[in-house]
Amino acid sequence: MNYCSHCGAPVHYAIPDGDNRERHICTACDTIHYLNPKIVAGCIPVWEDKLLLCRRAIEPRHGLWTLPAGFMEQGETLSDAARRETREEANAEVELDELHTVITLPHVSHVQMLFRARLTAPVFSPGVETLETQLFREEEIPWDELAFETMRRTLRHFFADRRRGLFQLHVEDIPQAPPKGG
Amino acid sequence: MNYCSHCGAPVHYAIPDGDNRERHICTACDTIHYLNPKIVAGCIPVWEDKLLLCRRAIEPRHGLWTLPAGFMEQGETLSDAARRETREEANAEVELDELHTVITLPHVSHVQMLFRARLTAPVFSPGVETLETQLFREEEIPWDELAFETMRRTLRHFFADRRRGLFQLHVEDIPQAPPKGG
Ligand SMILES: [Zn+2]
Ligand SMILES: [Zn+2]
Repeated sequence: MNYCSHCGAPVHYAIPDGDNRERHICTACDTIHYLNPKIVAGCIPVWEDKLLLCRRAIEPRHGLWTLPAGFMEQGETLSDAARRETREEANAEVELDELHTVITLPHVSHVQMLFRARLTAPVFSPGVETLETQLFREEEIPWDELAFETMRRTLRHFFADRRRGLFQLHVEDIPQAPPKGG
Repeated sequence: MNYCSHCGAPVHYAIPDGDNRERHICTACDTIHYLNPKIVAGCIPVWEDKLLLCRRAIEPRHGLWTLPAGFMEQGETLSDAARRETREEANAEVELDELHTVITLPHVSHVQMLFRARLTAPVFSPGVETLETQLFREEEIPWDELAFETMRRTLRHFFADRRRGLFQLHVEDIPQAPPKGG
């Protein structure tokens, strides 16, 4: 950040009065510009014993598989965001169940929040950011071609919980980018 | 938003190629400036059969009671944010238990996420944004002097779950500002 989005004057980086962190502060109008983590909302769409994955048509991780998820928008609820992303990426309608994972990635300031969900019908197709949509049984999951470490963890927890017959919420962090995946 | 924070040129409001919403787009460098919901992280600090509340020394809701919570910062985890806010507002150390409420306020684009937590010692005092800190039993909670509807709901769920002997996660939305409280 170099300029004030309110008045266009240059910003400087300093600790505001009463704060304890450096912020971008406007040199003209004194507006303090805060940066905040982003929420990635999505779901695990289930049909019978299978899950719906999407193969990414966009960077990062073009060509790799992911659960439908994306940035929550201003003015929507967390649930609406999860359903909207599923609609946009997979042309699929879901009914959301419980929240399944809340995973923080502090190095990129993302908090990924994925619900378990049921497809209302086995109807889906690639959205504009998707190359391919497909239902997978557990033994068919393309573990080596998953786009993100967060998705790998979410799927692992899902199958472990399902085998145990007890779903629960998993709140965890991925402290820094792993060597492969993200 | 009026100016590009990257180059200082004016922005216009339009739908970028491949998007479906209006965004602020720079007229000079084409940077798209996204706005995203903010996470409010905090906790319910428990000591024996009591909870710790803070009386606010800042607006909004100056003088009213709240659980310790505030905006999550870039680069921290959700848990770190909840513990930091408790330290800043109440000079108290907590061990976090499970996530208890995830409440979206779409009209202000906030997602409030509160953990249940245990004070590591009955040691607390007002931070700079707090007038007073106090432990309350259920029957002592100042229900009519709570700062936010989100806190009222979080406390109601907490006591209902405790009576039932089973804590769970509550994911819900407050679709628009209620007539009183927020
Ligand atoms: Zn300014
Ligand atoms: Zn620009």
